[in-house]
Amino acid sequence: MSDTLTRLAQVLEERKDAAADSSYVASLYHKGLNKILEKVGEESVETIIAAKDAAISGDCSDLIYETADLWFHTMVMLAQLGQHPQAVLDELDRRFGLSGHAEKASRPSA
Amino acid sequence: MSDTLTRLAQVLEERKDAAADSSYVASLYHKGLNKILEKVGEESVETIIAAKDAAISGDCSDLIYETADLWFHTMVMLAQLGQHPQAVLDELDRRFGLSGHAEKASRPSA
Amino acid sequence: MSDTLTRLAQVLEERKDAAADSSYVASLYHKGLNKILEKVGEESVETIIAAKDAAISGDCSDLIYETADLWFHTMVMLAQLGQHPQAVLDELDRRFGLSGHAEKASRPSA
Amino acid sequence: MSDTLTRLAQVLEERKDAAADSSYVASLYHKGLNKILEKVGEESVETIIAAKDAAISGDCSDLIYETADLWFHTMVMLAQLGQHPQAVLDELDRRFGLSGHAEKASRPSA
Repeated sequence: MSDTLTRLAQVLEERKDAAADSSYVASLYHKGLNKILEKVGEESVETIIAAKDAAISGDCSDLIYETADLWFHTMVMLAQLGQHPQAVLDELDRRFGLSGHAEKASRPSA
Repeated sequence: MSDTLTRLAQVLEERKDAAADSSYVASLYHKGLNKILEKVGEESVETIIAAKDAAISGDCSDLIYETADLWFHTMVMLAQLGQHPQAVLDELDRRFGLSGHAEKASRPSA
Repeated sequence: MSDTLTRLAQVLEERKDAAADSSYVASLYHKGLNKILEKVGEESVETIIAAKDAAISGDCSDLIYETADLWFHTMVMLAQLGQHPQAVLDELDRRFGLSGHAEKASRPSA
Repeated sequence: MSDTLTRLAQVLEERKDAAADSSYVASLYHKGLNKILEKVGEESVETIIAAKDAAISGDCSDLIYETADLWFHTMVMLAQLGQHPQAVLDELDRRFGLSGHAEKASRPSA
């Protein structure tokens, strides 16, 4: 799983220097933070609506698609503000003691 | 990075059988999908507000914290609906051709 | 003020029978509830972003524009579900004892 | 209808000078704009969820309640930023030509 987010972060970083019309991501950067945040808001609402529909229909394909859109746009937001998704994962690690390092550290010395 | 999301998904799965008062996640499952979706909505708005503040102050610590909250609650939503975050990452892979497998597959045979 | 919402509700009701391409409202009805709710979500996020910007710049013109968009789309939502905005105002009356009738009713008989 | 919004705006204005613990509105003002905007976001999501449920169940009572919550918190937001809801209604008038004045003006002279 890590590979996906690491590589996506790399793609998002590379597109920062690209012309506005070279890709969707490049056009978002050029439109600026407000436009990116509007997309985060839109995608969160589309995710919520898709989840309500999935709970009735049992079909989760839209939900997966919309959640990918939401995560993607939060990653564009992080990149625009100079942040790497690893910081978000570190915060989740910290809360849940998920990382291998954390587990190792908490093991008794013997 | 993968380790974090894989392990968090495992933790979320394990807490499905737990008593409502045993953890925050267990209490969310018991409150049901609407409550989980309200949290997804709340955290997306808090992320947006934190991004606006970070753009002024230059301090991104709240932004990272709120984005972690948002990703976390979308993962609880996925778990409640029987979905694994790998499906979301697969969708991102598919769009951006990010995975090692995809790259390999698309290489010319020579 | 009342005249505006009453007349807007009337306009929204009349456009229910119109062809999808006859107006923006008619096209929203034809796209269905999910599309209308996506617009409610979008406009609420645009309102929040406009409020953050207004607090810095002191210029509230965008905020007024976005709030009008948000109220408008909630009224389309109500109309789509067969509800009249008067029911929302009655609920606000009930909470705050705002209406002339409510005040009268709560006066001691003498 | 107008009476409700006009009076609510008056109540919201009066509570600006009140002690933080004197009412819910006063406590919101003291917590500041971010807290008020978080509530706008929360209530918009609760409205969207209530609309999805109403479309299935046919019962709109929660939807009316949540829409009242949403309108109420947008009015607290406007008051915090020194704006009156009349400006929002004027914007709706302008778009839809709803006001009596507008109708009069557009009537043929005969």
